[in-house]
Amino acid sequence: MSTLRDVQTPALVLDRARLDANLETMRRRADALDTPLRPHFKTAKSIDVFARALEPGEGATVSTLAEAEQLFAAGLDDILYAVGIAPGKLERAAALRAQGCDLILTVDSVEAAQAVAAYGATAGAPIPAVIEIDADDHRAGLAPKSADAVAVAKILAQSDGARFSGVMTHAGGSYECETTDAIAAMAERERAAVVETAAHLEAEGVPARIVSVGSTPTLTFAKSLDGVTEARVGVYMFQDLVMAGLGCCSVDDIALSVLVSVIGRQRGRGWVLTDGGWMALSRDKGRAPGAPDFGYGLVCDADGAPLAGHAVISANQEHGIIARIDGGEIDFDAFEIGAQLRILPNHACATAAQHAHYHVVENGQDVIAEWPRENHW
Amino acid sequence: MSTLRDVQTPALVLDRARLDANLETMRRRADALDTPLRPHFKTAKSIDVFARALEPGEGATVSTLAEAEQLFAAGLDDILYAVGIAPGKLERAAALRAQGCDLILTVDSVEAAQAVAAYGATAGAPIPAVIEIDADDHRAGLAPKSADAVAVAKILAQSDGARFSGVMTHAGGSYECETTDAIAAMAERERAAVVETAAHLEAEGVPARIVSVGSTPTLTFAKSLDGVTEARVGVYMFQDLVMAGLGCCSVDDIALSVLVSVIGRQRGRGWVLTDGGWMALSRDKGRAPGAPDFGYGLVCDADGAPLAGHAVISANQEHGIIARIDGGEIDFDAFEIGAQLRILPNHACATAAQHAHYHVVENGQDVIAEWPRENHW
Repeated sequence: MSTLRDVQTPALVLDRARLDANLETMRRRADALDTPLRPHFKTAKSIDVFARALEPGEGATVSTLAEAEQLFAAGLDDILYAVGIAPGKLERAAALRAQGCDLILTVDSVEAAQAVAAYGATAGAPIPAVIEIDADDHRAGLAPKSADAVAVAKILAQSDGARFSGVMTHAGGSYECETTDAIAAMAERERAAVVETAAHLEAEGVPARIVSVGSTPTLTFAKSLDGVTEARVGVYMFQDLVMAGLGCCSVDDIALSVLVSVIGRQRGRGWVLTDGGWMALSRDKGRAPGAPDFGYGLVCDADGAPLAGHAVISANQEHGIIARIDGGEIDFDAFEIGAQLRILPNHACATAAQHAHYHVVENGQDVIAEWPRENHW
Repeated sequence: MSTLRDVQTPALVLDRARLDANLETMRRRADALDTPLRPHFKTAKSIDVFARALEPGEGATVSTLAEAEQLFAAGLDDILYAVGIAPGKLERAAALRAQGCDLILTVDSVEAAQAVAAYGATAGAPIPAVIEIDADDHRAGLAPKSADAVAVAKILAQSDGARFSGVMTHAGGSYECETTDAIAAMAERERAAVVETAAHLEAEGVPARIVSVGSTPTLTFAKSLDGVTEARVGVYMFQDLVMAGLGCCSVDDIALSVLVSVIGRQRGRGWVLTDGGWMALSRDKGRAPGAPDFGYGLVCDADGAPLAGHAVISANQEHGIIARIDGGEIDFDAFEIGAQLRILPNHACATAAQHAHYHVVENGQDVIAEWPRENHW
């Protein structure tokens, strides 16, 4: 068995015990809410992670058609592509369906629904789609219970080339909530947006089979998902500093880190330089509202134990600069040239995306597997 | 021949005519300054781009050992790895040298120099290294003309396991200059830091063969590189909005863009949604001092002509939100669902790193080649 000492830095590290604990925690939440999960592939982009995350009979959510193709090749055939479809992708989506994958698309406009229906009619094989509902004025989607939603549902339901599968929403606004109570309220807003729209559509003669919500914060703090048929969550598998800042987990739950090596010390400036720049950490400096600025991530020792007050305050492509953000002084003797450290990510999706595979560890240092990531489109 | 209409979005687009013009412009600068280039592989990470960039006899700069391995496999054997060496990478570096690659390492501490010397002595094959000099208090390096620099040079020069190759610096501070005069002054500071250190080291009995500077801004505005033996530049090949903001190029020189498709319209908010999120654009929101905030990039039509005042104001993983930043109103008729657009990057290195290959175009839309990128470590 190899250890992290043998791994070339920078490298992506995944703690298997933490991953499994995170999966279990969310599974218990879903059970308590009596709502099946439709886990999102976009964070992990790893068949190996997904094999642990998925219960038999569960479907998957994807953010790209490449993810759908990978999951289908791995044997999964119930997949929701939860990003509004671009008509130029319909041929590729239809090809997946023709191979036996029950791929469901997402639309939030008359134009997109018409494009789906037209393509399916030409191909002679109807394409199912859900309608995206906008729960939080955050990004995409039609207004809940709107005439637009009815119009789009009817286009899908009544054309030969499409099928109406239901409604979905994503409360990305939950990332901006300042309290867990606010997240719970956002969860209710998310639930109500799709459940009320589904009822409205049913009254209009277009019943929704799928009533889908999803975000790690809202599922973590939702009080009820009555009427919801599935919850889409992704980042819970790894967790990250944003999730910890929102109260969705503790820092000790974060399963993902970037292994780096010390390459220099600038004693006069209180800096330790590493080979973990933004290419390894990502450029994501996102943080939860009111959370401290951890720069490009919090610093841990090689075993993954946090070094209090140490953060990556600056990053170039292949250089990271570590300094104290708590007013303390760096103990340079603890950062020998060549010493390994681990950096906890602000945003697991972004940091993981910078890497081609995970080094899976147990007991801090033991590398038990390498799991490939499938990036790109 | 295919066109961009056939390309699945999001996708990285490289305009060959602009690339070639940028290469020619920098070649003329180097000629005018009578200084050879040692082009940096870190931006393009493409053998195909590099084949156009390199003149016979020129060496390359790399930011990772993976880049060095790729270039050596492609036939290049004069390579400077311009990031401080982590001792854990010495075995891999020595393996490249043993195969005939003249790989030169970088150190900026006694400890790193000793690690290089010790490894080379044990392996029975000396390893050459340059000393990094800190021209601008920005990141790594030893102070110009410092006793530390002399001590490190002597360790390299006098041990059996190492060789002293010279001095290098990178004025990353040039990215923060507010005027081109300030960049020219930074270029002189960069030049002086290494030329004066080299003279100091020669007086101490350790002459420098390599006296290396480098950044696209400083080379663009340097008045003299007297005493410098080579200039390391990378981003000039593609240019980007930061370089345009610094005055190093015009927006029309930017050779790199991300092709995206319109997937939604939020008329009430003045938003056009695309499938180009941060996964395709990167999270890099860097900008030149005093430059406008272009969000995640400036919007062009499918042929690459800028749409005045349109920027990607927000990005999620696979969603980009385009809005006007000039107070104007979006003409939604110009953004049909499925329409393709191109986004100019803030930072070419970061945006290109999100992709596996370039779609190389001529005449706006004609795809003449696909060039792979070699990402990761």
